[in-house]
Amino acid sequence: MQMISSAVLKQMEGASWIRRMFERGTELKKQFGTENVFDFSLGNPDIPPPPKTREMLAKLAEQSGQPMAFGYCPNAGLPAFREALAAMLAKQQQVPVAAADVVVTCGAAGALTSFFRAVLEPGDEVLCPSPYFVEYGAYCGHFGGTLKATPPTLPSFQPDLDAMEAAVTDRTRAIIINSPNNPTGCVYSQETLARLGGLVNRVNATRPRPLYLISDEPYRFLAYGGVTVPPVLPVSPFALVIGSFSKSLSLAGERIGYIAVNPSMPDAALLMNAVTMTNRTLGFVNAPVIGQRLAMGLLGEGVDLSVYERRRTAMAQVLTDAGIAFTLPQGAFYFFPEAPGGDDLAFTDALLRHNVLAVPGRGFGLPGYFRLSFSVEDHVITGSAAGFKAAVAEME
Amino acid sequence: MQMISSAVLKQMEGASWIRRMFERGTELKKQFGTENVFDFSLGNPDIPPPPKTREMLAKLAEQSGQPMAFGYCPNAGLPAFREALAAMLAKQQQVPVAAADVVVTCGAAGALTSFFRAVLEPGDEVLCPSPYFVEYGAYCGHFGGTLKATPPTLPSFQPDLDAMEAAVTDRTRAIIINSPNNPTGCVYSQETLARLGGLVNRVNATRPRPLYLISDEPYRFLAYGGVTVPPVLPVSPFALVIGSFSKSLSLAGERIGYIAVNPSMPDAALLMNAVTMTNRTLGFVNAPVIGQRLAMGLLGEGVDLSVYERRRTAMAQVLTDAGIAFTLPQGAFYFFPEAPGGDDLAFTDALLRHNVLAVPGRGFGLPGYFRLSFSVEDHVITGSAAGFKAAVAEME
Repeated sequence: MQMISSAVLKQMEGASWIRRMFERGTELKKQFGTENVFDFSLGNPDIPPPPKTREMLAKLAEQSGQPMAFGYCPNAGLPAFREALAAMLAKQQQVPVAAADVVVTCGAAGALTSFFRAVLEPGDEVLCPSPYFVEYGAYCGHFGGTLKATPPTLPSFQPDLDAMEAAVTDRTRAIIINSPNNPTGCVYSQETLARLGGLVNRVNATRPRPLYLISDEPYRFLAYGGVTVPPVLPVSPFALVIGSFSKSLSLAGERIGYIAVNPSMPDAALLMNAVTMTNRTLGFVNAPVIGQRLAMGLLGEGVDLSVYERRRTAMAQVLTDAGIAFTLPQGAFYFFPEAPGGDDLAFTDALLRHNVLAVPGRGFGLPGYFRLSFSVEDHVITGSAAGFKAAVAEME
Repeated sequence: MQMISSAVLKQMEGASWIRRMFERGTELKKQFGTENVFDFSLGNPDIPPPPKTREMLAKLAEQSGQPMAFGYCPNAGLPAFREALAAMLAKQQQVPVAAADVVVTCGAAGALTSFFRAVLEPGDEVLCPSPYFVEYGAYCGHFGGTLKATPPTLPSFQPDLDAMEAAVTDRTRAIIINSPNNPTGCVYSQETLARLGGLVNRVNATRPRPLYLISDEPYRFLAYGGVTVPPVLPVSPFALVIGSFSKSLSLAGERIGYIAVNPSMPDAALLMNAVTMTNRTLGFVNAPVIGQRLAMGLLGEGVDLSVYERRRTAMAQVLTDAGIAFTLPQGAFYFFPEAPGGDDLAFTDALLRHNVLAVPGRGFGLPGYFRLSFSVEDHVITGSAAGFKAAVAEME
């Protein structure tokens, strides 16, 4: 029988490369033992939450006997948390963000689907520079939107802005960027953001349906060697920023994120009311209230970043020793090196033969590369060196 | 500018009656003081979570220093929690439910949107007996579906099954019921379920796209006077059950629910894989992991039901004394009485003049009635008696 809708069936058939690697990895670990498999396929932050998490949860335990302790909260989030986020964002984004400009969401993913539901008409397009996080396509597709990828500039991975401008049509409703980027680790420069803002503002001067600029920034906290992630809100009144505590507080499973609008956007309040409503009616209702209270208490905290810095150095050494070309990531916890031999599938298959799990670049809209997550224990990185060398040798 | 999509703009203009009453209530409380306003508009469970919640949260605090303590979990939920839910459901539903037949979701609402996304094609219809929870319409509408209401049998509020059968078309993809019912408190009888199952099975014998029967049961734990809520899974291979811990554990803000399929459904695994995927790609990713661990630890627990029983008795007395006709609710925490004078808007307006907040029946697809939530403190019920009498007098 035709159990499920044709669109969802199609999505299932195109199961993500990350998931396929995860499944191959599970088989390999059964066969060879976990300690003999070097798994760089998943971006699951493995550093423990900040020590203060314990104290905050103990406090929530004490308060759990109160009526409504964990009851429904306003759909847009706990008022005190929105205030605190607004103050944080005003400083970070250098525009006067108020509580009303922020909606707390079920992670960055919940922010994106609530936003797309609020603004997309069926047939609308969303532009995204490749390589990109594959699920963006599904997020738009639920509401009749289509993700259109535009090429990167190589080897920096900054977006090709001329190509992006050429790709804008009357149906382009949003440009989405992700910085620091998954999968490349690229931090989009101030110049990139300024030019994107200029593009969006030029387009919006000519038409009644705005073109939005959304920056998805779950890895903002994680930039290396003095690189700073420039703020997106100042570059256009039509800019929005999305963030998450999944990685910065290692709370990925509890699903706390937010979306904030540039307060100078015309009708900003209407848009945020719409997002508050879609956040409710998509079934989120409100972001998980224990996570909201936890993240509010941990707002000044972060996980130990020196661990990621050390792993980045170790991973770079392993790749260099294997003769693999790469651009050093400026942020996030991914490398996106060139696939030796040029075929990302052939190379990740070769890696698999040596028990190394990586995701082919085509899983991010850019064949010829592959992604490594270095959110893994140090011994996984050092232990993989021989496997990388052997896989490269097979390509020659 | 046209900031948001036309469909969402339309939804916003039709802001729910519950929300309008909430806003009127906020004004009244400012004007007269909270203690002088009798607010029966919201179904927010006010009984504290079970005492064991404190112990469970303290345990989670102890474990919070572990890597991945609150990291991503499998999209379908923590394996141990799915096992425990399956065991609970096998007993409750009297069919052999296994862990693979259960997906943990972001509340019952998240279960419904993930399910509708998985099965609805644009243009499909979902049948629902009125009165019904208004957001069902939005849940279907996100994915091009339309909710079609069918009339109840009065005064019992059991669905009119002949009318429902007559309303089935080739595009009917699901029948959704809610028992114990919000807003009526009606528990759908074994006979009602058996007849619904028969209808679904007859329809499915004739066509390749199945008609599903979904029972949304967040109030299953709350039935009065020895009434039991009969299980839906045995009545059809195409039945699914949705539940939640929002009310039974007073955890509404933390968003933990589930969807379970009759394991004898053809291709049950395909459907549950689809729901697991839509649960991920709608942005839920996984149900909040702290809430999952909490609910798993509290699975045998419940809030103190005698409180709701006492309030039901008190509310019935207030209505009887005011000369208002009602069917005593068999479950949940709502009364759905007849509006004196016959016009639900006129009567809820009269109640407002006496600082009593109720929601007109048209907010649930059934004008001529009004909804009272008795999830309120006892003094709100007793304090409202004069207001009810005065409002009734105004209708005469």
